[in-house]
Amino acid sequence: MHTYALKIAYDGTQYHGWQVQPNGTSIQQLIEEALTTLHIPVRLIAAGRTDSGVHALDQHAHFRIDTYLDTNRIQRALNGLLPHDIRVLAVEQVHPHFHANRSATKKIYHYAISLQSYVMPFERAYTYHFPKKIDFELLQQATRAFVGRHDFTSFANVGGGADLEKNPFRTIFRLDVIQTGTGIRFEFEGDGFLYKMVRNITGMLLAVATGRRPIEDIENVFKAKDRKVAERAAPAHGLTLMKVFYPEELLLPPAE
Amino acid sequence: MHTYALKIAYDGTQYHGWQVQPNGTSIQQLIEEALTTLHIPVRLIAAGRTDSGVHALDQHAHFRIDTYLDTNRIQRALNGLLPHDIRVLAVEQVHPHFHANRSATKKIYHYAISLQSYVMPFERAYTYHFPKKIDFELLQQATRAFVGRHDFTSFANVGGGADLEKNPFRTIFRLDVIQTGTGIRFEFEGDGFLYKMVRNITGMLLAVATGRRPIEDIENVFKAKDRKVAERAAPAHGLTLMKVFYPEELLLPPAE
Repeated sequence: MHTYALKIAYDGTQYHGWQVQPNGTSIQQLIEEALTTLHIPVRLIAAGRTDSGVHALDQHAHFRIDTYLDTNRIQRALNGLLPHDIRVLAVEQVHPHFHANRSATKKIYHYAISLQSYVMPFERAYTYHFPKKIDFELLQQATRAFVGRHDFTSFANVGGGADLEKNPFRTIFRLDVIQTGTGIRFEFEGDGFLYKMVRNITGMLLAVATGRRPIEDIENVFKAKDRKVAERAAPAHGLTLMKVFYPEELLLPPAE
Repeated sequence: MHTYALKIAYDGTQYHGWQVQPNGTSIQQLIEEALTTLHIPVRLIAAGRTDSGVHALDQHAHFRIDTYLDTNRIQRALNGLLPHDIRVLAVEQVHPHFHANRSATKKIYHYAISLQSYVMPFERAYTYHFPKKIDFELLQQATRAFVGRHDFTSFANVGGGADLEKNPFRTIFRLDVIQTGTGIRFEFEGDGFLYKMVRNITGMLLAVATGRRPIEDIENVFKAKDRKVAERAAPAHGLTLMKVFYPEELLLPPAE
């Protein structure tokens, strides 16, 4: 049995998220259909099951199969079959223990926001338009409340594979707010994220930054362990899965 | 009489270029229609009449009118009326002598190329897919032949306002090739560009970089003063008008 990993980038605008589901086309479905055309009838497991409308620049997925594959040719054939908003960046044989979701040690998500009266045309599909006045100092202070290991129950939706019931604790290593020319970008780096967690935290941060909720509310929301007391999730299209990290040993095929 | 300048960004994918024309929707047409809705029935004159499929991040256009305008409110109203792939970045009163095309002292165009087997999804609308092996050293050498003041007849198409007949000489101040993560980007900086000149030069440069034409051919093509001996134009969607420069005095309204 051999294990292969796919590196994948997509513009999520047209899709109902990563995961195969009854209504609407998913990214997983299209890639599995393309693999089936190439006589590789497998199920893919992804690093993160991105939601409807969420993008990825470096998603990973794996599958296991008995035969050896010509990875370069498979990659090109997949790109020939897939629509242009989904691209397979690489197909690589990896260690038999590699698991795209469970082996991941770190993930980086970016959330892009335009604070101007307009969104630049090239960025309109990847940027949340939020033309409001924000307190940048207060926003930076607010991000600190999320860094570290926390029970994120209040910032996680139910569903998405029931991660929440298994373990509501996650560690955010880094949460930076970067000023771009036209707005801000949140950079989330963590050991994993619960269902809709990045978008829920973003919604809360924007509520604090605009003065709609006091900064002290963040601690209260954490303590409540109740999704309903937090803010609404920020919209999907501002969110992009930027990078997934794995132990180096698992990214190499087994020695012969 | 007052003169107003618009700064405009657009994704040209859906449009038949800047200029109003009988077949297909142009960007000029949509902005003039929006201005008419606001009771500003004017004709716009642009810095560069970008072709069908060409993009702009900082196009300029001007119009003259008898009345004073509330520029901030006009800008917001225009963005409310226009589709999201056309954004008015600013409306400003300028010097009465300002002319978006004739007053321009310098323009910068970028041409983006992916050399990989794929184009990243976020960049697919703005990047020419050219998955070939190129000689980067040779390419850099080839760009030097275009820098300076030249008769660009062989690299200009007829049409687009008959600039060519008036004066086929233009000065390219800078022509850089930048290596991006996934390919290259040409940066053209000049006092003005003839019709399809940037795309024609790009086509020639790629022919030299792939070894299809010897580098000496560039001088021969210049000397021939004949469009037919040069290469085909590179496709429109890789090209973006990045910036237009004007004398500072003309960008300010007249002193009272």
